[in-house]
Amino acid sequence: MQYTFAERVTHMDSSAIRELLKVAEQPQIISFAGGLPAAELFPLEEIKESYYQVLSAKDPSVLQYGATEGYLPLRQEIAAQMGMKGIMTEAENILLTNGSQQGLDLLAKLFINPGDVVLLQNPSYLGAIQSFQSYQANFMTIPTNKAGIDENALEVLIKHNQPKIIYLTPTYQNPTGITFTTEERKAVLRIARNYRVPIIEDDPYSELCYDGQAASPIRSFSTDDEVIYLGTFSKTLAPGLRLGWIVGGKNLIAKLVIAKQGSDLHTGTLLQRATHYYLTHFSPTEHIEKIRHAYQCRRDLMLSELKKAFSNKALWTEPTGGMFIWLTLPEEYNTLKLLPKALATNVAYVPGTNFYVNEKSHNSMRLNFSNPSPAQIQQGIKLLAKIL
Amino acid sequence: MQYTFAERVTHMDSSAIRELLKVAEQPQIISFAGGLPAAELFPLEEIKESYYQVLSAKDPSVLQYGATEGYLPLRQEIAAQMGMKGIMTEAENILLTNGSQQGLDLLAKLFINPGDVVLLQNPSYLGAIQSFQSYQANFMTIPTNKAGIDENALEVLIKHNQPKIIYLTPTYQNPTGITFTTEERKAVLRIARNYRVPIIEDDPYSELCYDGQAASPIRSFSTDDEVIYLGTFSKTLAPGLRLGWIVGGKNLIAKLVIAKQGSDLHTGTLLQRATHYYLTHFSPTEHIEKIRHAYQCRRDLMLSELKKAFSNKALWTEPTGGMFIWLTLPEEYNTLKLLPKALATNVAYVPGTNFYVNEKSHNSMRLNFSNPSPAQIQQGIKLLAKIL
Repeated sequence: MQYTFAERVTHMDSSAIRELLKVAEQPQIISFAGGLPAAELFPLEEIKESYYQVLSAKDPSVLQYGATEGYLPLRQEIAAQMGMKGIMTEAENILLTNGSQQGLDLLAKLFINPGDVVLLQNPSYLGAIQSFQSYQANFMTIPTNKAGIDENALEVLIKHNQPKIIYLTPTYQNPTGITFTTEERKAVLRIARNYRVPIIEDDPYSELCYDGQAASPIRSFSTDDEVIYLGTFSKTLAPGLRLGWIVGGKNLIAKLVIAKQGSDLHTGTLLQRATHYYLTHFSPTEHIEKIRHAYQCRRDLMLSELKKAFSNKALWTEPTGGMFIWLTLPEEYNTLKLLPKALATNVAYVPGTNFYVNEKSHNSMRLNFSNPSPAQIQQGIKLLAKIL
Repeated sequence: MQYTFAERVTHMDSSAIRELLKVAEQPQIISFAGGLPAAELFPLEEIKESYYQVLSAKDPSVLQYGATEGYLPLRQEIAAQMGMKGIMTEAENILLTNGSQQGLDLLAKLFINPGDVVLLQNPSYLGAIQSFQSYQANFMTIPTNKAGIDENALEVLIKHNQPKIIYLTPTYQNPTGITFTTEERKAVLRIARNYRVPIIEDDPYSELCYDGQAASPIRSFSTDDEVIYLGTFSKTLAPGLRLGWIVGGKNLIAKLVIAKQGSDLHTGTLLQRATHYYLTHFSPTEHIEKIRHAYQCRRDLMLSELKKAFSNKALWTEPTGGMFIWLTLPEEYNTLKLLPKALATNVAYVPGTNFYVNEKSHNSMRLNFSNPSPAQIQQGIKLLAKIL
């Protein structure tokens, strides 16, 4: 049967990353393409024990329908953790979601009319672009100059175009690894507040800091819920659980609850109970320390391999945290066209062009250093240098 | 901060059921209001063992990102189970979702432009109404007469209004408990096919059959993917897991995958692996038999208590399966206005008016018999009779 879909479907593209991942999954390929954590570091034993204990307590409510907002003790625990990042909040300001991707989707559903403008970094997280596109948003991009964000240009742009939402990943951004300075955070907040534009602060990576602490989240400077914060357990615990959260004003949480009721009633009860057990009976901080150390070594290794192989032939970011390095080749290269050659040589990356809205770059690529092993990083960067 | 929401937010209402459940959760209240399975029947031990085994296999991929479509062996297992219901299908026709509520939301997102007409039963499942409303659908209702569906009126209505989607729960419907005959199923399919309108068949209850087998699903008669089928583990296993599936044509599944990528990337990997373990290592059929027996006793008891207490004073459905009885009082009663009195007497129900679109009924109520214990059913129906 031929279906007649809604207008918005014409704006919904398949994720190039995910299609790519299918090829890059073959065992002989060294993949810098995914955005995957290192599976060998997952706290399997602790998660097993958490599910076991929660399911041994003879409390069948762990398998019953639950409140749309989420399991109250977990929301309280998250509120306490937010406090340690400088975000003072309460359980009533928190909604549990199926990863922060669902947070993005619910916010896009609440805010975006077809044609509304979303202001974001260019390049930006592909999943966010997809979510906003599926509600038929238009995009404008944050103006930058040599010093970082161009504040004057940003103010003019917001004043003249009145975006509906500003979407930012200010800390160790996917795909570039770039981080906003504290001054830039405060500047964006000040301008957004003046023109009454809410900011969505997507913060999946701030625990993955390798050179001192991450800068404080923008929400920690906000006084009137101008900033809606998205958090996730995908990078600090495990992405296959699909658990994240939104921090926002109570009125916004009430609207999000209605949106989530219609979307999937609530996030899994057992999942929330087991995660709460893990957070309160094990040492998540120690676990994060372990990941941090491993990823820091991989980042250092990738940076030194890049220096050996690409010195004078390319530019790359030197991220102080996160999971990604952004490599820019000379103008004459096209990383999308080079990809089949790379895959044939058994190395994979994501062409930079996939992360752009509006004006695109054809000569950049995203390299992930959290998932490949140190040996793979050494070999993979050499392979990459060979084909370029 | 005052936010400016999207136009669709004005169409999104909070679920009266869920607000109600909060009051009805108090332990002294006998609640016929929820749509909850009996928690004491959940296979806690088997689910515990399933998670334990899956997490003991030293395979960290159970916690890693996964394919949006879902875990292939689970999709294969579901395809095989669909075959036993007369739906011949393959893993490639199946998308895993967070309960069938997410299936509804993804389908509404794909099909509904603001103002599009959804044709549905009146009354209908509240969660479906909410999902369609959030995409600004208009509603028309299936015409009925004494004999059931009025086929001629249905054909005229479809011809003149060209609905975008027909949404049906043909088996043991929520809220009424009513089931379409095989003739009605075939008639709706024939008319829908003639006018090229896809049907969403929501089928959460068909395993809960108490008087012989349920009629075959409409999808089992469809030859060209005219029927999109929604299944769930919420009633046969446990709703707190949040796991359901969509069966549809491969082209439709491809579109749904794109929509689900933007919504939450994929359904939990560990959840899918543990559910697959449960289905292939335990006896789900025996477990369903156990639920069926318990619910049948509760249905029989509620029907006999209604007969004792309401004979000649009310009408009610006598469902052959599912979880609900629909009670209709004489015209002069208003079940919404009576609810505070009922709650004060420690008994809860859902006023029928919540399940209606367009023309409403004020003198009906939905009674759930799966969650209350037999003793609560006896006492609760007596309390209900007293206040009426």
